[in-house]
Amino acid sequence: MLFGYLSNTPLSEARENYTSALLKCGFTSSKENIEVFKSSGRMTASAVYARISAPHYNASAMDGIAVSANETFGATETTPVILNKDSFTVVDTGDPLPEGCDAVIMIEDVVMRENGSASLYAPASPWQHIRQIGEDICAGEMILPSFTKITPAAVGAMIAGGVRSVDVIKKPLVGIIPTGDEIVPPTADPKEGDILEFNSSVFSAMLKECGADTVTYPICPDEFDIIRETAEKAVSECDIVIINAGSSAGREDYTCGAVSSLGEVICHGIAVKPGKPAILGICSNKPVIGVPGYPVSGIIILEEIIKPLVDLWFNRSNDGAEEYIDAVMSRSVVSGLKYREFVRVRLGYVNGRFAATPLNRGAGVVSSFMKADGILEIPRNSEGVEAGEKVRVRLLRSEEELKNTLVAIGSHDPLLDEAADMIHRRFNDTYLSSNHVGSMGGITAVKRGEAHVAGTHLLNEADGVYNDAYIKKYFQSGGVRLVECVGRTQGIMMKSGNPLNISSIKDLNKKGLRYVNRQKGSGTRVLIDYLCKKENIDTSEIYGYDREEYTHTSVAAQIASGSADAGMGIYSAAKLYGLDFLPICTEQYDLLIPDYAWETEQVKKLLEVLKSDEFKNRLAEMGGYTVESPGRVRKHYEAK
Amino acid sequence: MLFGYLSNTPLSEARENYTSALLKCGFTSSKENIEVFKSSGRMTASAVYARISAPHYNASAMDGIAVSANETFGATETTPVILNKDSFTVVDTGDPLPEGCDAVIMIEDVVMRENGSASLYAPASPWQHIRQIGEDICAGEMILPSFTKITPAAVGAMIAGGVRSVDVIKKPLVGIIPTGDEIVPPTADPKEGDILEFNSSVFSAMLKECGADTVTYPICPDEFDIIRETAEKAVSECDIVIINAGSSAGREDYTCGAVSSLGEVICHGIAVKPGKPAILGICSNKPVIGVPGYPVSGIIILEEIIKPLVDLWFNRSNDGAEEYIDAVMSRSVVSGLKYREFVRVRLGYVNGRFAATPLNRGAGVVSSFMKADGILEIPRNSEGVEAGEKVRVRLLRSEEELKNTLVAIGSHDPLLDEAADMIHRRFNDTYLSSNHVGSMGGITAVKRGEAHVAGTHLLNEADGVYNDAYIKKYFQSGGVRLVECVGRTQGIMMKSGNPLNISSIKDLNKKGLRYVNRQKGSGTRVLIDYLCKKENIDTSEIYGYDREEYTHTSVAAQIASGSADAGMGIYSAAKLYGLDFLPICTEQYDLLIPDYAWETEQVKKLLEVLKSDEFKNRLAEMGGYTVESPGRVRKHYEAK
Repeated sequence: MLFGYLSNTPLSEARENYTSALLKCGFTSSKENIEVFKSSGRMTASAVYARISAPHYNASAMDGIAVSANETFGATETTPVILNKDSFTVVDTGDPLPEGCDAVIMIEDVVMRENGSASLYAPASPWQHIRQIGEDICAGEMILPSFTKITPAAVGAMIAGGVRSVDVIKKPLVGIIPTGDEIVPPTADPKEGDILEFNSSVFSAMLKECGADTVTYPICPDEFDIIRETAEKAVSECDIVIINAGSSAGREDYTCGAVSSLGEVICHGIAVKPGKPAILGICSNKPVIGVPGYPVSGIIILEEIIKPLVDLWFNRSNDGAEEYIDAVMSRSVVSGLKYREFVRVRLGYVNGRFAATPLNRGAGVVSSFMKADGILEIPRNSEGVEAGEKVRVRLLRSEEELKNTLVAIGSHDPLLDEAADMIHRRFNDTYLSSNHVGSMGGITAVKRGEAHVAGTHLLNEADGVYNDAYIKKYFQSGGVRLVECVGRTQGIMMKSGNPLNISSIKDLNKKGLRYVNRQKGSGTRVLIDYLCKKENIDTSEIYGYDREEYTHTSVAAQIASGSADAGMGIYSAAKLYGLDFLPICTEQYDLLIPDYAWETEQVKKLLEVLKSDEFKNRLAEMGGYTVESPGRVRKHYEAK
Repeated sequence: MLFGYLSNTPLSEARENYTSALLKCGFTSSKENIEVFKSSGRMTASAVYARISAPHYNASAMDGIAVSANETFGATETTPVILNKDSFTVVDTGDPLPEGCDAVIMIEDVVMRENGSASLYAPASPWQHIRQIGEDICAGEMILPSFTKITPAAVGAMIAGGVRSVDVIKKPLVGIIPTGDEIVPPTADPKEGDILEFNSSVFSAMLKECGADTVTYPICPDEFDIIRETAEKAVSECDIVIINAGSSAGREDYTCGAVSSLGEVICHGIAVKPGKPAILGICSNKPVIGVPGYPVSGIIILEEIIKPLVDLWFNRSNDGAEEYIDAVMSRSVVSGLKYREFVRVRLGYVNGRFAATPLNRGAGVVSSFMKADGILEIPRNSEGVEAGEKVRVRLLRSEEELKNTLVAIGSHDPLLDEAADMIHRRFNDTYLSSNHVGSMGGITAVKRGEAHVAGTHLLNEADGVYNDAYIKKYFQSGGVRLVECVGRTQGIMMKSGNPLNISSIKDLNKKGLRYVNRQKGSGTRVLIDYLCKKENIDTSEIYGYDREEYTHTSVAAQIASGSADAGMGIYSAAKLYGLDFLPICTEQYDLLIPDYAWETEQVKKLLEVLKSDEFKNRLAEMGGYTVESPGRVRKHYEAK
């Protein structure tokens, strides 16, 4: 194995080679004996047999008298059999059957006489009304086969069968070694250049979900000897070892060298995207995996390489564990021919079908995995997927939950997050997901039948009226409602103290002022374009006018960080970041709701939330909003 | 509330009354603040907002040089811009953007000159190749709404967003109080009349699965004061309290009284079966539930009453959490009009459809819950379900697992359990379920298309040949194969030392001998009927001849316990229980495999197991089998 060189091995081939190399050197689970009452959810290592029968004694199944059946033979309505008091025993349900008895007669069928004897008008058949030994479980019977997940009921059955402890497959211990000079432990106050070490927490949580235990070693600097020593220690202490990262083939990537020096590298470089620079190694007959540092790459390698190792350990098939649904792509995705690509998508269930929208494909964007509803796999040798194409998506959330989710696509406002919180607090089976694609993006999504609701604040330059002209233009055959939401104050956000002395739109092309803009198609972009035009400002003279952010918050974040001096946005975003704010105008931020969504439960619940006092209170806290009658239909553009 | 009286409140009404009474007195979750890296799988108690942006600094997204974009304006192929060495900084991917820079140029696009200056042939646009602050998460942005399950990726996003600890909903602590004079802690050596206390372990495992913590109190005897005191202590320490059992209205049922004396009983007696004698109480504003003692009744009350309380605590909807499938009933189920009945069923996926077979409906049979694949609900005011009727069954196992299960219905032999173990050890996605209904039951199941395979050993009295005559009779149009399995020694099992001196079939009608038989339709019953006929024995003279057990093992268990003296069965069962064994004959135990199942993966895997050496070794260990060529087709009765 050469260093400095990554192969491009197809995923399935890499997995097969690795598995067979591991099996060849004896990679297998170990077992441990644990108390049965702690065993629920664990997997049996071998078949479990009952040690005693359940019930372990013959018991009366009724309240009545226990008798010897042959003493009752011949009893009839007309010729009763009379048992004297020594020939029977009064029993309650559950009482052990007395010695010499082999039947129970229900108390209702017995006439007790004054001298203590009992009259019977029908014979008892042997073993009637008796709960016999072993009715539930017979001693020696197999209660559970090998490699079977122990359910709560199985715990009961084992205890009833006299089993006190059970051999289960030991949880594999996975050692996680974070590496990197810039990596620092989690903090709310990192220095510039520090990278917060969260991968080990994500990996650990993922591994625990699939039944492993984990231990995370202290962060190693980018030094070969330290990485090697830590890996050697981890290999001696754990069943599986993960080295994160340094798994590529760069100058400071020591992981491959460390693995080679301790054992063998089976594969370096897998044809997946993200996740390519992975290392599959074996040291002391144990798997040692170099996992790339970008969180999304790492998660993919965890899912595709390490979870299957844990399944192998548990002798567990993972077939069918995944759920898939059919969806229609809302945008094209271009993919390279060389890799099998895993694209995280959002799914919206609107108008009776799922639409899939690709999320930010950056390998560093951990939030994209959190927001993802599903994974779209694009095979090698495919150039991608066209918009409108039908695709099969692996679910990361339940289909039910997705079907109960209100899909908001359009202009961004933090009030949508607050509405999402409120809607789920009120209606625990309902969710709201919002995609920030700007007002025009929202109109398009509604037209395509992919959104229940779209936030929109598009100003018509001609008459200064919001939204109406755009709706008339884009929905010429109607079929939508414009619903009042809020008035909000738009203005120029700038560093606290206003160091550049910005007092109007006209100052934006000042020498040395760095502007940060919103993306084309957003209502705020339409607004700033309009304002500049009105003031006769050549926007090509505004430095950074092409620098586009997708939300008010991210514009504010750039200004707060000092990487820009000014940007257009709403008051609540400025307030959140402690920025100065120059109010320019109040605009109507409304909701476009198509007729096809109007009668859905989700939309009804949203309107209920918008009309609530709590919504008004939250807006007041955020600041910069004027509220009149949110939820009121401004206009119904009836379908023609 | 009168004691000694059970109401018959419909389940939904009981649940609604109870929930509204609890909400009225303020039953609600509490929260706790935990470290983020331990929070995966927990549920947020309130919305979580980012404290810092991620990335928290502007970073180079490429290896290259960082520049101020405006110094590059005007560069073209023919008129390069030359930056002297003080005007740029070499950066690696991830490096912070140096002060004064606002663009990165890829190293491939830079021509470095000897004097340390750099030539550029194209201008950089501001913010190109920079991973900007907040690209992933903006400070102040909502990362997670309230009442949201924290995923591993969300753990990463929170850490990246500078969140170190998170408010989650505290797990409700459920106190479980076992009661009853006969109840003893789990043991492998109980005394007669002792009832092993396993309910608390089952309940605890079930509650942990749905997110609760549990504490089990010491077993209380049936004494009002002790039960009351323990309940009072549990109410002060826990969020929810379960008293198991004494929940009915009998003489020694103190639970209702204890709950009344500490608070209020909202409902005593629910119209469900099993599970009727449940008590829904509120003490100190906390739910206190009296749960019936029979394990199956208890599990139903846990499922139907207590799990919904835990969902209420977590503000979690349980809609859609359950999976249902359609199945055809293989037998009728009669149900009382008064109750909503929960019938545990086995499901077999054969020939493209699910067949549902009701399991033992005894409320005491904990193994029936372990064996159950699904629950069939029969509503109140329904008399039950007919054989052949289509029903909707709630799944307890995954549909995938059920579809990968080989369904064996027919004659019992412990070798089927061993085969089940072997098949799943070898093929981790394949399972074998076996139902013991006797050889004739197996034939019927195959005819109905409900079994992949049926164990059969039916002796034709006329010619002494096994199986062939029966198959010809019942499958006149063919379509099945008879597959060789084993020869096995049938004989009379009797107490060790043979105290009754049994030396042949003729001794079975001896005075004082208690026989235990197999059920009608089983091959062993056919055999003993035949043997008695041959010896001219009147079976009505054999005491206990009508006492029927369903397996060899349970016949052996009765003899071992002393409740019977002799029974017909196979050697391996006698050996398991240390019984004496009088061999009578060797019979063919074969497998009937219908053509519709022959090509299935499950049957192929079974045949592979039957042909393995391991199968022979296991049989040798069990004893009493002769093995020639298991898996060989004796005869194919071709479809006509």
